[in-house]
Formats: sequence, structure tokens, C-alpha cells
Amino acid sequence: MGQLFYLADLFGVVVFAITGALMAGRKSMDMFGVLVIAIITALGGGTLRDVILGNYPVSWIRDDTYIGVASLAAVGTVLWVRLTQPIHERGLLIADAFGLAVFTVIGTEVALQHQAPHSAAVIMGVMTGVAGGVMRDVICNEIPLIFQKEIYATASILGALVFIGMTEFASAAHWLNAGTAMTVVLLVRLAAIRWHLRLPQLHLLDRSER
Amino acid sequence: MGQLFYLADLFGVVVFAITGALMAGRKSMDMFGVLVIAIITALGGGTLRDVILGNYPVSWIRDDTYIGVASLAAVGTVLWVRLTQPIHERGLLIADAFGLAVFTVIGTEVALQHQAPHSAAVIMGVMTGVAGGVMRDVICNEIPLIFQKEIYATASILGALVFIGMTEFASAAHWLNAGTAMTVVLLVRLAAIRWHLRLPQLHLLDRSER
Amino acid sequence: MGQLFYLADLFGVVVFAITGALMAGRKSMDMFGVLVIAIITALGGGTLRDVILGNYPVSWIRDDTYIGVASLAAVGTVLWVRLTQPIHERGLLIADAFGLAVFTVIGTEVALQHQAPHSAAVIMGVMTGVAGGVMRDVICNEIPLIFQKEIYATASILGALVFIGMTEFASAAHWLNAGTAMTVVLLVRLAAIRWHLRLPQLHLLDRSER
Repeated sequence: MGQLFYLADLFGVVVFAITGALMAGRKSMDMFGVLVIAIITALGGGTLRDVILGNYPVSWIRDDTYIGVASLAAVGTVLWVRLTQPIHERGLLIADAFGLAVFTVIGTEVALQHQAPHSAAVIMGVMTGVAGGVMRDVICNEIPLIFQKEIYATASILGALVFIGMTEFASAAHWLNAGTAMTVVLLVRLAAIRWHLRLPQLHLLDRSER
Repeated sequence: MGQLFYLADLFGVVVFAITGALMAGRKSMDMFGVLVIAIITALGGGTLRDVILGNYPVSWIRDDTYIGVASLAAVGTVLWVRLTQPIHERGLLIADAFGLAVFTVIGTEVALQHQAPHSAAVIMGVMTGVAGGVMRDVICNEIPLIFQKEIYATASILGALVFIGMTEFASAAHWLNAGTAMTVVLLVRLAAIRWHLRLPQLHLLDRSER
Repeated sequence: MGQLFYLADLFGVVVFAITGALMAGRKSMDMFGVLVIAIITALGGGTLRDVILGNYPVSWIRDDTYIGVASLAAVGTVLWVRLTQPIHERGLLIADAFGLAVFTVIGTEVALQHQAPHSAAVIMGVMTGVAGGVMRDVICNEIPLIFQKEIYATASILGALVFIGMTEFASAAHWLNAGTAMTVVLLVRLAAIRWHLRLPQLHLLDRSER
């Protein structure tokens, strides 16, 4: 079972590295920039979580599989886009939703293991899921998409809440808690993609703009 | 006395969360974005300080009051602005100056407790006071205001210097050191707001622009 | 020999502080902004490395020479540019290449001392060399130059690889390993400056842009 989680984790790394490589390529960065943005997107959320929790050594220093997998995904993305065909956008979105689900559950679990209170565990779950993408957007000089487009982080929040609720108040097996929470993230995110669900934007003006 | 500091700390969290929520709302973010920016603005400076010092667990993982208070402030800000009236800008500026004063003294004190040299303690005090706002501005794709507008961080620097001087070289009670330093930050900042004091901007050109 | 490394390290701090002060001055920041950007540019990479490795206390908290030297460099830069003449751009580029070489080797070495795998040690070396400049550019709202201009990080990667290779697989003295790796960074970077070498930019378009 731990093996399955590890594979899911690596799958999430691959998916996020691809989104990072694509964004960097659209910004006309060179191969090094693509590699860096891909690695930051894939591993940035988990690294931030581990540093804030004091959870040393962080994943990719403990195990060099992570960097290897992220690098391969970046190189593969560039070759794929240049040599063959455009990325299958819908397939990427679905894979990304799966990555979000895995990272959310892993992040929430690590926080709970560090005796974080529930509110902090939710934040750690969401942070693991979305912070890499936020770093990607900030470095590429974009307002982070997750604050403006279809429901994304909300799916992650709901999954973290489900995982915490089941872990703390139910007595089910760990794989059932994790699987249910991941399913919640996936379903909410896929529904948001399918029907373009979004939270209402807030348009607050201050006096000087009126 | 510790209780009073705790309340002042939470007051600073509320004030900075409000400024974060307002900025996010002006950028047309959704409710999730507003919540995240508010929490980052309120807790980002202290978190960065604790991570650099290795001061684990960080405040909001030790005590979930911080996240709760910041979240309530964000929700309250949105309701207030949409349902009732615009924010009282001047009142917010004064409250923000108080938050800056509290955070500066707390940050400086934590650094001194970790045997940081004086120069690092000043930086930690200023960082605790201003880094949340810098993160807010960077994520919202603005050049951080503190580098361009009325004296802000300078007030924080002066307060940190006063606190260090009194703590290291005088023998007054802790509350007197802290209170004096906070008063210095407040007075300098309020004077800067009242008379639009600012440090001179530097306009350095490199050869290619001449 | 350790003394020589310490001096080289401080030289790197001075050089990076100057580039930070110049960028901040071009953005019309005030003296405080110039100081902060200079310190972040000079010490940001090493701080990020230490925080990710859990290598406490970080350099400038252990030894206040670092902040002092960076601050003096920032003040000196402003005085120099305003009172005398424009910066000698080419001289600065060469000094910067030397700083990159020193920081790369120090970062790689610290990571190896923490039992990081080779891939992570390369990342730590590059991060120590370039992250301060990336923070400078992100805070100043620029797309980081290192992803777009002449070969820069690539020089750092090659130096890190040489250092790791010689340290792990050869039996030469430490100063020889470090000196060779630094020379590689310097030569590659200087060649890139001299002949405007750059990696090819990638222009990946997604379907929506075609």
C-alpha cells in the first residue's frame, strides 16, 4: 500500500512538472529555465510544507527519484511538444486533478503526523497541492491562476477536510480514508472543469477608485 | 503581561489580514484567493522569521487561534465592504501602524532569544513586520509598496534598534522596553502618514538607458 | 585555506549586493528598498539553501559580518553611482561571474556535507548561486533574467558537477577540487559573456494560441 502511494506521489510530480515546463516554454525560457520551473512546480509545494513543519530531510534530499522524475518529465514535455503534437489539454487537466488529489492527502497526513491542529493540517494539504503552481506563476510573472479560474483549491480544501474527519473521528483503514479524500478532490475538480464551476469573483473597490 | 502581548499579536494579525483581503478583492480574486492572501499577509512575516531561525513549531501550527482569527478577519472584510460601506482608509492605516509596531517588537525579541547578532535581530524584527505585506504584493503582481511610499520599514527599523538598545544596555522591565519600542514605531509611522514623509527615491540609470 | 574561502564568500556577497542595489535603484526605490534588495540578492540564495537543508543557524545569523558587508556594498553603490560615474558594466559582469563560481562551490559542498544525493547537491549549488538574483527579479517584478539571457545557470551546473565528480571519485585535495570547479564556472560564464552564448529559447505554444 505504501508502494502504491509512492507511485501516486511520483505521478503527481510528473504531472506538475509537465505544467511547469509548458508555462516556461510559453514564456520563451531556455531549456534550463524549463527544467527549473518544472522542478519548482513539482516539488515546491512539498518543500514549503516540509520547511514550515521542520520535517527534515525534505523528500527530494532524502530520495533522488523525485528530481530525476521531474527532470525527465520536463525534457519529455519539450520533446513531445516540439517533435510531435500539441499537448492534449483535457488529458493534462484530468491528470493534474489526480496530482492535486494525491498531494493534498499526503500534505494533510504529514501535518497531522506532526501534531498540527486541524486548521493547519488543511492549510498544509492545500499548500502541498497548490503552492508549486503558485511559485510557477509568480516566477513567470502571472497572477496565480488558482485565484481566478475554475474551482481548484476548493476541491483541495474539501479533500483535506474529509481526510481529517475520517482520520480523527472514524476508525476506517488508512487506505480507505486516503482513497475517499482523493476521490472527493478528483470529483469536485473534474466537475469544476466539466461545467466551468467557479467561485464568484470579488470586486472590491477602495474609495480612491470610485 | 504575556496575555496583553498575545492580544496585541492577534490584533496585528487581524489588521494585516484586512489589508490582504482588500488587495485581493481589488484584484478580482475569488473568496478562496481572498482568504489565502489574507492569511499570507497576516502570518507570512512571522512564518518566514521562524523558518529562518529554525524556531519550530511556527506560531500557527502551535496554536490554531492565529488561522482562525485571520480567516474571520478576511470574511468580515468582504462582508463589510460589500454589504455596508467602504473601508475607513485612515482608520485602517492607523491600525496597520499598530500592527507593524507589535510585529516588529515580537520579531526582534524572538531573534534575540535565538542568540542572533544585533544586525540579524533588526532584520528579523523588520521582516516580521513587513514580509507578509511584501508577499501579498508579490503574489498580486505589484512592486511592494513599502519600497516606494511613505516611511514604513524605517519606522520598524528604528523600533527594533530601540528595543535592542534597551534590552541589551539598560535594565528596565521587559514591558517598558517593548512599550517604548512600539511607541517609537507608532509615532514615526503616524508622522509619516500625517505629513507624507518619505525617504528620497533613488533614480539610478545604467549606461544603456542614458 | 578556510580563510581564503571566507574572503571569497564575502567577495561574492559584495558583488551580488551591488547588482541588487543597482536593480532597486533603477526601479526608483528609496534607500531602504535598495538596502533590502541588496541584502536579499546577496544572502537569499544561501539562506534558502540552509533552510531547505535544515542547516541552522544560517550564515548571517551565525556571523554578522555578512549583513555588514552587504549593507556597506549597497550604500557604497548608491554613493558611487550618484556622486561619480556610471557602473563599469563589464567589470561588474566579471565580478558577478566570480561570485557565481564561489557560491556554487560553497552550496554544493554544504549539501554534500548534509548527505544530499548528487542531484540535490547540484540543485543546492545552483540555488546558492542564482536564487538571490531570482528573488531580486521577482520582487522587482521582472521575469528572472537567468532564464532568458546568456548562459548563466548552466555555468553553475557544470561547476557543481565538476566539484561533485572530483570530490566523490578523485582523491585530490579539497582546495584543488574547489578551485577547479570555480574555474569551470568562471570560464564558461566569461565565454558566454564574451561571445553572447545562450541556450536556445523554447517557444512552446498551446492549442489556444495557435
